[in-house]
Amino acid sequence: MSQTTLAELNACTRTEFIAALGNIFEYSPWIAEQAASARPFVGIGALFETMKTAVERAPAELRLALIKAHPDLADKTQRAAGLTAESDAEQNSAGLDRLSDAEYDAFERVNNAYRSKFGFPYIVSVRRQTKDSILRDFERRLPNDVNTEMQTSVGEICRIAALRLDQLVGADDRLQVHGRLSTHVLDTHSGKPAAGIAIELIELSALGAARVVTRAITNADGRTDQPLIGGRPVPIGRYELIFNVGKYFAERQVQLSDPPFLDQIPLRFAVSEPEGHLHVPLLVTPWSYATYRGS
Amino acid sequence: MSQTTLAELNACTRTEFIAALGNIFEYSPWIAEQAASARPFVGIGALFETMKTAVERAPAELRLALIKAHPDLADKTQRAAGLTAESDAEQNSAGLDRLSDAEYDAFERVNNAYRSKFGFPYIVSVRRQTKDSILRDFERRLPNDVNTEMQTSVGEICRIAALRLDQLVGADDRLQVHGRLSTHVLDTHSGKPAAGIAIELIELSALGAARVVTRAITNADGRTDQPLIGGRPVPIGRYELIFNVGKYFAERQVQLSDPPFLDQIPLRFAVSEPEGHLHVPLLVTPWSYATYRGS
Amino acid sequence: MSQTTLAELNACTRTEFIAALGNIFEYSPWIAEQAASARPFVGIGALFETMKTAVERAPAELRLALIKAHPDLADKTQRAAGLTAESDAEQNSAGLDRLSDAEYDAFERVNNAYRSKFGFPYIVSVRRQTKDSILRDFERRLPNDVNTEMQTSVGEICRIAALRLDQLVGADDRLQVHGRLSTHVLDTHSGKPAAGIAIELIELSALGAARVVTRAITNADGRTDQPLIGGRPVPIGRYELIFNVGKYFAERQVQLSDPPFLDQIPLRFAVSEPEGHLHVPLLVTPWSYATYRGS
Amino acid sequence: MSQTTLAELNACTRTEFIAALGNIFEYSPWIAEQAASARPFVGIGALFETMKTAVERAPAELRLALIKAHPDLADKTQRAAGLTAESDAEQNSAGLDRLSDAEYDAFERVNNAYRSKFGFPYIVSVRRQTKDSILRDFERRLPNDVNTEMQTSVGEICRIAALRLDQLVGADDRLQVHGRLSTHVLDTHSGKPAAGIAIELIELSALGAARVVTRAITNADGRTDQPLIGGRPVPIGRYELIFNVGKYFAERQVQLSDPPFLDQIPLRFAVSEPEGHLHVPLLVTPWSYATYRGS
Repeated sequence: MSQTTLAELNACTRTEFIAALGNIFEYSPWIAEQAASARPFVGIGALFETMKTAVERAPAELRLALIKAHPDLADKTQRAAGLTAESDAEQNSAGLDRLSDAEYDAFERVNNAYRSKFGFPYIVSVRRQTKDSILRDFERRLPNDVNTEMQTSVGEICRIAALRLDQLVGADDRLQVHGRLSTHVLDTHSGKPAAGIAIELIELSALGAARVVTRAITNADGRTDQPLIGGRPVPIGRYELIFNVGKYFAERQVQLSDPPFLDQIPLRFAVSEPEGHLHVPLLVTPWSYATYRGS
Repeated sequence: MSQTTLAELNACTRTEFIAALGNIFEYSPWIAEQAASARPFVGIGALFETMKTAVERAPAELRLALIKAHPDLADKTQRAAGLTAESDAEQNSAGLDRLSDAEYDAFERVNNAYRSKFGFPYIVSVRRQTKDSILRDFERRLPNDVNTEMQTSVGEICRIAALRLDQLVGADDRLQVHGRLSTHVLDTHSGKPAAGIAIELIELSALGAARVVTRAITNADGRTDQPLIGGRPVPIGRYELIFNVGKYFAERQVQLSDPPFLDQIPLRFAVSEPEGHLHVPLLVTPWSYATYRGS
Repeated sequence: MSQTTLAELNACTRTEFIAALGNIFEYSPWIAEQAASARPFVGIGALFETMKTAVERAPAELRLALIKAHPDLADKTQRAAGLTAESDAEQNSAGLDRLSDAEYDAFERVNNAYRSKFGFPYIVSVRRQTKDSILRDFERRLPNDVNTEMQTSVGEICRIAALRLDQLVGADDRLQVHGRLSTHVLDTHSGKPAAGIAIELIELSALGAARVVTRAITNADGRTDQPLIGGRPVPIGRYELIFNVGKYFAERQVQLSDPPFLDQIPLRFAVSEPEGHLHVPLLVTPWSYATYRGS
Repeated sequence: MSQTTLAELNACTRTEFIAALGNIFEYSPWIAEQAASARPFVGIGALFETMKTAVERAPAELRLALIKAHPDLADKTQRAAGLTAESDAEQNSAGLDRLSDAEYDAFERVNNAYRSKFGFPYIVSVRRQTKDSILRDFERRLPNDVNTEMQTSVGEICRIAALRLDQLVGADDRLQVHGRLSTHVLDTHSGKPAAGIAIELIELSALGAARVVTRAITNADGRTDQPLIGGRPVPIGRYELIFNVGKYFAERQVQLSDPPFLDQIPLRFAVSEPEGHLHVPLLVTPWSYATYRGS
């Protein structure tokens, strides 16, 4: 799925347009078909709104068919039979392709319970979630009635679509689908940004193993060259940031206890707004530290 | 081994005295015998110094015999054959009776490497240590020469003896063998001590599982009714204190994100001075926290 | 007015009792007279409650006379004519004997405005106040009706009486009339309590000059040997604690900028509960600091 | 003195060039004359280096004449007789036109002591200084020998020249003569940037009154729209930043004590690097705050 531009989409044939955007909504090219007639679009925002409106104004049966076109999450049989490339990548992004046994069981229970109550699959935009938050989201949604869940499902489908569109189409404007997670280490022992601190970002999991999301080293400004997470949603979930400060201070000949009072410092926090900017800094001496939710 | 008093020890027969203190130094009643003649003692400090001096002034062969009288650490065969009650309790205090396979292997290597180099067992006062710190201590001591290690061993044996004496004998004065680990939670959101926070103290282990040392709930003053560790040495090692702040703030109707930005806060730190007073407080709001080494 | 004991008061003649306690309530020995008949008292608390109840159950005219028996605050003419020793000491404690011209004018306005509205003097327990808080208290009370102010005045008179009683009479129990203001300096650069830090406590004033309340040097535990304020109420008001940290770090050969980023650190805060325990610590490195309301 | 561009200076006549830059070095057009012959300049940096080199390579007598061409600081007689526009603006920037009597006396002593020891005026780039730091700088320089002071004076003259050049000439490159002082208020009670906080930056003075440098209100990001000081050197000296947090929290219906524990928070700090970026943030709840030197 190579990227295209809005200008190309405005200029191409109707057939090419539908071919390009046919799977923005899973197995539902009729939405792209309707949008093809509304060209040209001034921006990707306008394009997305047109597609979203098509979904919202569609007859209920069509919306239900759209919902039912989605696969179950983490379903081994369906994955073996083959998902769309988009669904496959999305599920992999949340680690649904490498679950522990306990997690597989949990997802199977979730899918079955949901499907047997509502008659359609449990849908959530997994790029905005972690395994834990998906299961937590399910717990909250299962008690709902069917109308609420149809609406919620359509909302999640539109979030999935917005992210697919954002990946596929280049334009001057941007959909508001990206968040950012960043950090900053300030060495308040020397009064300077702490350079050269090794950092690990770990996604915590209630049922499975913790997973390293990314590793980085702080630069001369005490920051990481790239955000820890950027250019995509920051998945809702629980995390630990681990800062290797013991090595940092030892290398600077700072007098430490043995073993050092502080060595690897974990900051454990949750992400609740995938499209927000979350800054989790560390102010640190060999004997104290502080953190806060910054922006 | 019931407790006795210094007054009783000063007043009892020589035989009773030796019976009571014969195993303060492992399998070496000759030290108690020498001390018996030096009675009466003005305090437990004086008694201990007398016994220690006896060891230091003993002929080298006797000191070596004293060293060799000690068991290996975490040795299954010796434990099966039976340790002294004191050694057994000491090894259990550091968790040497419930090691992971990797830890057993590590201890076996340590014992063998040490014994084959020096010809006597590797001795350390395990009540002042965790499994990790024992292995770390070994790494540091193995390169030493035999004289250094004889001195080090005698030093550790005296530490063991001081702790045994402290447990056995009541007196007006105290040996300086106890440390203290305490905490304090200040809720800087409401400006008050945080009452009702569930706390867990966990001993971390490089080779085995983490181990819960104690659990407590903060009282109205934001402190725990008892020190987290008190009335004994605080074992050298790495720890995590986990504070359940999410529940605390949720119960106080404070507006939180979902999931809460902070829920279980781990403070990871090391203890380096078993006889010191270490205070690890938490200053916390739903969006920030700080800690420092206090006293 | 030398101190006496509750036992002596329980045992002495009625005349001696009234002579001793006649001015606990300003110029109103009838309250002591009533209390004399209720002897013996099990504690100073019981004695005070008896006197307070006598006031509360007295006819309105007598309570009004009690109110009118009090002097104006900071009134030069009355002071020249002579106050009771108690009133004089109380007013001096709040600095009412050394006001700036602007403050004298403010107090004169307050006294006149209050007296002309209510027909009796403006009364407040000045040992619990600063000049600023007295003027602020007045602003809040002036809009009240006369009944409210009679009640408020009696409440303040009882606070005055409790403090006089506490100073005069020794007993096993204590009236809850004392507060405490303390501090603690933790050097998070070295991970130790900061010893030898010069501290000044200053009372701020809106209309006059700031006033040094006390000076102290931190001891080996980073605390002051005595509370900054103790054994008396902590007057409601605004304060600055100034910590001389530049000199402290310079003497420890810590590398500093020139001039040092932090030298004299002022912590500005208000006291609102004179009988409370207020702890205002400083956590400090040469490049950062933090404080919080502790307890 | 209107601004010109480097392109214009490269293209204009020699006479125009000298007219434009004749007073970059006080009363010393010979430096501009030498630079005129070295045109064209690729940047303002190259232009400045050329002028600086001209000074450094000039015969000692000429350098001495350059030094002597400078006025005394804060000298009433010279100011009455008229300074160059540049000198006048520079001295005013440091407040030398509105000194207290004690300050005038101090500057007079400084000028006289310096001139009588060295035979030339005491020169310092006052745009990089406050009144206090000028007097402090003098104390440090007075013990020097004459050669050191000639060098120091030339160094200061070049700093003066660089700032004059930066103000006068627009170019693609910039001389590194500007610093920045910024702040940021994070409300860790609500976990958000604190918007609408009134801030005052005050320059402290040992001999005269404190002086408000600037006032600002924090924006939605908790920052000020403009740096507190920017586009110029941040003068060496002692400052207080005062944050009006009492009003901020009261307006947000946060439960406070009466009077509020924290109302106006002063952060007192020193600037030591006029060309550096100094960030002094405030992390604050109604009951706690922290600051640190950021970057």
